[in-house]
Amino acid sequence: MELAKLTGWQLKAGKLHREYQFSDFVAAFGFMSSAALVAQTMDHHPEWFNVFNKVRVDLTTHDAGGISALDVELARAMDELAQRQPQK
Amino acid sequence: MELAKLTGWQLKAGKLHREYQFSDFVAAFGFMSSAALVAQTMDHHPEWFNVFNKVRVDLTTHDAGGISALDVELARAMDELAQRQPQK
Amino acid sequence: MELAKLTGWQLKAGKLHREYQFSDFVAAFGFMSSAALVAQTMDHHPEWFNVFNKVRVDLTTHDAGGISALDVELARAMDELAQRQPQK
Amino acid sequence: MELAKLTGWQLKAGKLHREYQFSDFVAAFGFMSSAALVAQTMDHHPEWFNVFNKVRVDLTTHDAGGISALDVELARAMDELAQRQPQK
Repeated sequence: MELAKLTGWQLKAGKLHREYQFSDFVAAFGFMSSAALVAQTMDHHPEWFNVFNKVRVDLTTHDAGGISALDVELARAMDELAQRQPQK
Repeated sequence: MELAKLTGWQLKAGKLHREYQFSDFVAAFGFMSSAALVAQTMDHHPEWFNVFNKVRVDLTTHDAGGISALDVELARAMDELAQRQPQK
Repeated sequence: MELAKLTGWQLKAGKLHREYQFSDFVAAFGFMSSAALVAQTMDHHPEWFNVFNKVRVDLTTHDAGGISALDVELARAMDELAQRQPQK
Repeated sequence: MELAKLTGWQLKAGKLHREYQFSDFVAAFGFMSSAALVAQTMDHHPEWFNVFNKVRVDLTTHDAGGISALDVELARAMDELAQRQPQK
């Protein structure tokens, strides 16, 4: 795990936490739809909250009792997908 | 507003609150994708949280400073969409 | 492959073909969003066409030069997801 | 209607036609999920075909018996959403 290289994420309550703010709901949910496909393929799902243009993500691996390499991989994938959408 | 007729919803922190538990992520995100289309058309968006098969929803109308008829309408629409998916 | 047990599908131009007709676009795209998750996890993607409430699907396996067990598996999964949505 | 300003679209069988080629299915379906939200809000839906990373779109307005300003508006919105995703 190379947590140090994850930009924009922080440790919060033992989970990898990040908040995205997009231009609008279309951008936010477009991001979520893409990220859902990636998460399902990894069989590793985020805890995520959305309201309008905001998406807050918490990543942890229950089986590992904390943050695992899967969380770092999903965090990187979500960052790549988020960067495609216009930010506010 | 006919809050009394909404089954499964409760008032929580001044918002309409409900928790759905589906069979899996495919069911949960299928529900969310349909509900996103309805919410966007209404221009009224939920606060919602998802992890795997669970979706927790809070509805309020910021412009109204509380729960409005829009929230009740969205709650009903979400219930109808949720019932399509297998529950756990 | 037990093609005989697939109801509602036909062979068309060498592909497994089916047409779904849902109640509206919300139902049709809700189906597609769920089916996209399943297809991506299988790494086996449909050829599909949508307009409003209609979804037409063609399944084939390019690597196999025809219909394979993967197509039958995806056909069954799509049928299960389609039955969740209201039909027209 | 300012068809002349639409780049990448052509008239085909009396409809506005465009083909997008994205990097993969995640990009293609991310685009479709965003476009579905826009189309539903406009109450104007595309005819579209997808396989893996490709999305082919045909736009027409049945009530108008041909291409209308709604089609041009949807074409522009789809172009904007498509440009967010990596192209192949």
